[in-house]
Amino acid sequence: MNEYTYDEIETGHTESFGVKVGEADMESFYSITGDENPLHKDESFALSKGYPSRVVYGMLTASYLSTLAGVYLPGKRSLIHSVATKFYKPVFVGDELTVEGKVSDKNDTFKLLTIKVSIRNQKGEKVLKGEMTVQVLEEEENE
Amino acid sequence: MNEYTYDEIETGHTESFGVKVGEADMESFYSITGDENPLHKDESFALSKGYPSRVVYGMLTASYLSTLAGVYLPGKRSLIHSVATKFYKPVFVGDELTVEGKVSDKNDTFKLLTIKVSIRNQKGEKVLKGEMTVQVLEEEENE
Repeated sequence: MNEYTYDEIETGHTESFGVKVGEADMESFYSITGDENPLHKDESFALSKGYPSRVVYGMLTASYLSTLAGVYLPGKRSLIHSVATKFYKPVFVGDELTVEGKVSDKNDTFKLLTIKVSIRNQKGEKVLKGEMTVQVLEEEENE
Repeated sequence: MNEYTYDEIETGHTESFGVKVGEADMESFYSITGDENPLHKDESFALSKGYPSRVVYGMLTASYLSTLAGVYLPGKRSLIHSVATKFYKPVFVGDELTVEGKVSDKNDTFKLLTIKVSIRNQKGEKVLKGEMTVQVLEEEENE
């Protein structure tokens, strides 16, 4: 886990990681949310809507932004203030995603980072694009 | 699960549901994301930052918006286009949340709903506020 302080991060700083969406992740997300929508749960419904298979929950894909902030940028001292995402293409079970964040702005008064985020699939296609604001918590004397 | 068509939903239409955040949900979210940030995983770290206990992942709370769209508003024919959320107060394991969405705008060309969303805890405090755009898929002849 990264442990960047606010001062250690410059505008333009970029972090990324890869993650593969598994069937177990779909089950876990369903257990949290109870979202039984057939686009995510019923293969025949998804096919009837023109998809090659069940579609991964958009908010499951968005949940990787939690990891981006909490583990990578800034890591340990992360406190997410806001997240805005647009979904560009469907994600399917088995897709290998690359999650990337780039610091586009810093607010010194609130130690707040603005991070442009994007998630791409194994074909390089953008599946999610958005922006987060993340506060960097103060370093403690006793850490 | 609701099965509203686009035409059945008027501006002002409101749906809500309740959900309790459990320890198992925290584990499920961790299994999906690998977000090992100590604010969510380490009680002593959370205490050192002034919280009464570990803080629920913000994006776990946001994941209930998947349910709001996919089960309630509009339900079956939901396709989420975008989600924007701000986190107002921390959520803790055991909190009982009320998730609410109200249609604020309709775009007939794209059959797109704009939904103002809010999530409140058992004290009535707003913990999340935001906006989603959700397309209502066409009704199929063979449904």
